Amino acid sequence: MDKKKPALYTCLSPALLNLYDISDSIVVIIDILRATSTITTALKNGAKSIIPVDSVAECIRIGKQIAAITAGERDGKIAEGLQYGNSPFEYPESFINNKTLVLTTTNGTRLLHMALDKGAKEIIIGSFCNLDTVCNYLIKKGKPVLLACAAWKDRVNIEDSLFAGAVIRQVKNHFSINCDASQIADTLYENAQDDLYEFMKRKEASHYKRLISFGLEKDIRFCLTANTANVLPIYADGKLIKKAGISIASPQDQPL
Amino acid sequence: MDKKKPALYTCLSPALLNLYDISDSIVVIIDILRATSTITTALKNGAKSIIPVDSVAECIRIGKQIAAITAGERDGKIAEGLQYGNSPFEYPESFINNKTLVLTTTNGTRLLHMALDKGAKEIIIGSFCNLDTVCNYLIKKGKPVLLACAAWKDRVNIEDSLFAGAVIRQVKNHFSINCDASQIADTLYENAQDDLYEFMKRKEASHYKRLISFGLEKDIRFCLTANTANVLPIYADGKLIKKAGISIASPQDQPL
Repeated sequence: MDKKKPALYTCLSPALLNLYDISDSIVVIIDILRATSTITTALKNGAKSIIPVDSVAECIRIGKQIAAITAGERDGKIAEGLQYGNSPFEYPESFINNKTLVLTTTNGTRLLHMALDKGAKEIIIGSFCNLDTVCNYLIKKGKPVLLACAAWKDRVNIEDSLFAGAVIRQVKNHFSINCDASQIADTLYENAQDDLYEFMKRKEASHYKRLISFGLEKDIRFCLTANTANVLPIYADGKLIKKAGISIASPQDQPL
Repeated sequence: MDKKKPALYTCLSPALLNLYDISDSIVVIIDILRATSTITTALKNGAKSIIPVDSVAECIRIGKQIAAITAGERDGKIAEGLQYGNSPFEYPESFINNKTLVLTTTNGTRLLHMALDKGAKEIIIGSFCNLDTVCNYLIKKGKPVLLACAAWKDRVNIEDSLFAGAVIRQVKNHFSINCDASQIADTLYENAQDDLYEFMKRKEASHYKRLISFGLEKDIRFCLTANTANVLPIYADGKLIKKAGISIASPQDQPL
């Protein structure tokens, strides 16, 4: 019945990535708290590009080499030797416009490199910030999709699964979904959609507790807010840049 | 607050087992469709013991050596060279009473051996058939717990996650649960509990579709039915046997 529709799968942890053939897929990297939310926001605010690297040493080396801003976290805090952290609020337009950011994070940038190593056809960045933009793009392209959750040190987490569910909810009629993980994510989002923040709090999501303990409630709330950025970060030649020609209407662009 | 309570974690796929320290834990092996349902049912029906092995060749070898029944499946069908399959209906009391079964399955017995190799303190078998018995035992023991889902070739599945959620629902006040996978399983079960079979059907669970295509609706319905067996299969000296002294009242033992 769904034979003509492309397949969509959800990978709940980087440790499961090897189960999926992504050589012909668009891979959506998902690290809601906070890497992919920050990447999307920085590009929306005018960052020229973001170079994702998988180690702090590499971040420092490249930052020096091209005189770029170095940023990143380990275990939710600014990594030693780097200038900035992993909060979207650190990258307003007044600061980041026209600059290049070299970024390393515990889970998100690591997963991106794993997907590259596995030969992903196309890698894009997904977050609630650009939810509708991602969904519209996936529908428009009509290619197989892997929603790839960065998780937390390979442990499945709630917020990345929620985002996968939010995407599935919007795109499911356009894809063939023979994937229990996708159904689980969809069910999770169905339960949480009325108030994602309250759901995270009520379920005592481990990353919710971690960031709250650092006083970062504001970050959590922002990273769970949909459609603050109509940009699509795409990986090309070692960098994440804004995909050109993204002008699909997002809710915030439409008259009420 | 929960400092005195033992920890409970849920591992959604064997590929994630290495993330959990189980040296002091009771590991509950979960393979709802159908290994752990069949093991529980066969022991309830009087099987002397069940020897779980991880290959068909080993199954045949041991079966010959001790003149036991050999059984098992690969990809949901009776494996070539074995006598019986992986359906609980193949093991009524009239057939299995006082016999020994050597069993190999795609996911469940493999996970059991992985948990053994990782030095699990204690391994028990969980299925909807013995749901209350498992929950009562875990509460009574008060030890750390890992709910270990056998999944399908390492891919997360709905039915094993549902069982984890069903256990969590009953035991959560007795454990400290700092584990997003457990919260996801709990939420999933909350949505499905009114009719597990209908949920599996509506969500097009991959194993539901696989078994339905073999005409095994009856097996699915049975494996999703709670508390048909007040037995606790426990692993000891290479065999799964009925844990002695399990007489905790299950619903079916109580007057209405």
